[in-house]
Amino acid sequence: MERLMIPGPAELHPDDLAVLAEQTVPHYGDRWAPFFRGLLDDVAHLLDAETAYILPGSGTAGIEIAIANLFAAGDRVVVPDTGYFATRVAEVAEALGLRVKLVATPLGAPVDPDGLDLAGADGLLAVHVDSTTGIRHPVEELARRARAAGVTFVVDAVASAGGERLRLRESGIDAVVTAPQKGLAAPPGLAIVAFDRRGSEQIRRHRPRSWFFDLTRWQEARDKDEWEPHPVTMPTAVVRALAASVARIASVGVDSWIADRHALAGYLRSRLRAAGFDVFAPDGHAANLVTVVPCDDPDLYARRAIRHGLMIGRGLPPLAGAVRIGLLGETATTASVDRIVRALEDRT
Amino acid sequence: MERLMIPGPAELHPDDLAVLAEQTVPHYGDRWAPFFRGLLDDVAHLLDAETAYILPGSGTAGIEIAIANLFAAGDRVVVPDTGYFATRVAEVAEALGLRVKLVATPLGAPVDPDGLDLAGADGLLAVHVDSTTGIRHPVEELARRARAAGVTFVVDAVASAGGERLRLRESGIDAVVTAPQKGLAAPPGLAIVAFDRRGSEQIRRHRPRSWFFDLTRWQEARDKDEWEPHPVTMPTAVVRALAASVARIASVGVDSWIADRHALAGYLRSRLRAAGFDVFAPDGHAANLVTVVPCDDPDLYARRAIRHGLMIGRGLPPLAGAVRIGLLGETATTASVDRIVRALEDRT
Repeated sequence: MERLMIPGPAELHPDDLAVLAEQTVPHYGDRWAPFFRGLLDDVAHLLDAETAYILPGSGTAGIEIAIANLFAAGDRVVVPDTGYFATRVAEVAEALGLRVKLVATPLGAPVDPDGLDLAGADGLLAVHVDSTTGIRHPVEELARRARAAGVTFVVDAVASAGGERLRLRESGIDAVVTAPQKGLAAPPGLAIVAFDRRGSEQIRRHRPRSWFFDLTRWQEARDKDEWEPHPVTMPTAVVRALAASVARIASVGVDSWIADRHALAGYLRSRLRAAGFDVFAPDGHAANLVTVVPCDDPDLYARRAIRHGLMIGRGLPPLAGAVRIGLLGETATTASVDRIVRALEDRT
Repeated sequence: MERLMIPGPAELHPDDLAVLAEQTVPHYGDRWAPFFRGLLDDVAHLLDAETAYILPGSGTAGIEIAIANLFAAGDRVVVPDTGYFATRVAEVAEALGLRVKLVATPLGAPVDPDGLDLAGADGLLAVHVDSTTGIRHPVEELARRARAAGVTFVVDAVASAGGERLRLRESGIDAVVTAPQKGLAAPPGLAIVAFDRRGSEQIRRHRPRSWFFDLTRWQEARDKDEWEPHPVTMPTAVVRALAASVARIASVGVDSWIADRHALAGYLRSRLRAAGFDVFAPDGHAANLVTVVPCDDPDLYARRAIRHGLMIGRGLPPLAGAVRIGLLGETATTASVDRIVRALEDRT
C-alpha cells in the first residue's frame, strides 16, 4: 500500500490506530457521556467556536446540516464559485430548496470580498480552501462583509480546519463545517459543524425538514440526557480516534500545530519550484494542507509517485490538468516532502 | 470493561478489530471501487434484497433515508405502535412532512395484520423487532396486507437483520433498514437500506429534499463513477470491518447463522425461566437478538450483571420495568448465556 500524500484521508498516528482496535464500547453511560461532552468542547475550542456538533456523516453531510439548520427553503444565498467544492455547496443548498446565486470568480485568485454583491441575500456560503486549487480564501474579510450586510455566513472548512487558523468568535463567521479525515488527522465517518454565538442562536429558530439533521434535537439530548448525549448511535471507534487526535493537537497547541503545517507547505512549494514545477496558488494565498501543481500529464506524475511508494491526488474539475499533494497526518513531514519531490522529478 | 450483553452495539470478532487497526485507505481507486460494489451486493444478498445502499449514518438515518426516498411530504403512512422504536419511526416520518397514523397495539403481543386499517394510506412502516419488548412482529404477513392494499411497506430491521430471516423478494417487503452494530456484528457508523425490485423502482420516482440522503445520487455514483462509487467520503475503517463480518456470516451461511441465534435465544429463555424469571415476548414471537425480562428493579439486575463483569440493557419506555439482554457478536455464546443467568440469580 502506498503512503498517502493525497488531500485526504490522512494517515493516522499509530496510537489512534490502537484506539480503533479496542473492543467496541457502548455509546452511552457513565463513562461515555462525559467523554463525548468533553470532546464537543475540545473540538469547539480547536475551531475557536462557541459550540460544536459531531454527527455520523461526512463533510458534505456537515454542509447540509449547517445549511438546513440556518436557512429555510426559499432563502437566498450567495456562493462564490471557487471550484469543485463550491459547486458542491451550491448543489446542497439547491437540494434543500434555497435560491442559490453561484458567483463566478477567477479560479486562480482568492475571492475578492469587495466584489461580492450581497444585496437581498440571506446567506453567504464560502469554501475556505477549495481542494481544487489549493487557494486559501479570505474568510475573515468575507465575514466582515457578511456581518455588514446582515447575512449569515457559513464556511466550508473541510480542507482547512486543523491546517489554517479559523477565528470564528472575533471575525463573525457564523458556522464552520469540517470532517475528521483532513487536518484533524482522524478517521472519516463524521460531520463536524461548529457555530459562534450568533450562529448558535440562529439554529434555534430553524427546524429543518429532517429528523436526523435537526440540531435542536441533538442539543436537547446533550442538555438533558445524562445517559446518552446524542439522539442516535454514534460511531464509537471513530469518535474515540478523533478524540485521541484532537488531544494530540491540543498537547502541541493549535497555533503551533498550524504554524508547523504552514512552514511545511512553504517548504514543499520551495522544493517544487526549485525542481521546476509550478504551484497554482498565488503567493500569500497558498493553503497549508493541499498544494496543487498544474501539469499536462497528471497520470504520469501519479504513476511516478506510485513507483516511489506514494499516492497523490489527481486534479479535480475545472482544474483537471493538475496533481494535488496533501500534507496531512503522518505524512506531514519534511522527509515526505523530499520524497514526493524526488518522485515527481524521477524520469527513469 | 464489562463484556457487552446489551442489545447493541455488539462486541467485534478479533479479526474485525484487526481490520479496524489497519492504516487508513483511500475511499476511491482501483482497489476500493470494486471492493465497495462487492460489499453492496453481499449485503443485499444477506438481506435477500434486490439492491442495498450503505451510507455514513446510523439506524435512524437509515429510517429517514428510506422514508425520504419512498414518500413525499403529505403522504399518509400507518405505523403500528410497537414500542420505543416505532415512535421513533413515526417521529422521523412526521419530521419529513408525512401524515402519520400511529396505531395503538397491545405491547405484549405481535401486531395483528388483520386488525390494520390501510385504507387511504400510501405506506406502512413497521418495526420487525422492537428492542423495547423483544417481540418479533409478523412482517411477512404485514407485507401481504400492504401489497393487497397497494401501499409501500418499509421494515425497520435494525434490531433483527442478521438475527431473523428476512425474505424481501418473496414476501413483498419494499424496503428494509438496518445498521451494522447489531446482528451484523460490525462497528456502528453506517446506515444500511435495502430494497426489493418494486421498492428499488419507487425510489427513482422520489427525490428527497436533501442532497446527502438522495439515493438517486448514490445510485448514479455507483453506476457511473469507476473511481469512487459513492458521492461522499466513506468511513473506510468501519466499512472494511463490516465487510469482514459480512464475509464471516456468509462463510457460515446466513440460514445457519440465524438458526444458531434462534437456538441460543431459546436456550436463554429456558435458562431464565428455570431460574424463575419471566420473558416478556409470547412463545413463538420471541426475538433472537434481544430478550426482555420484566422486573421490578432493573437497576438491581444491571448491578448484578456488572458485578459479574457483564453489561445488560435497561428497559426502554413504555416498558421501563425490565432488563434487556442482547445476544450479539462475540457474546452470542452458550457460555455467555450461562454467565448472565448466574449473574441475575446471584443474591450475594
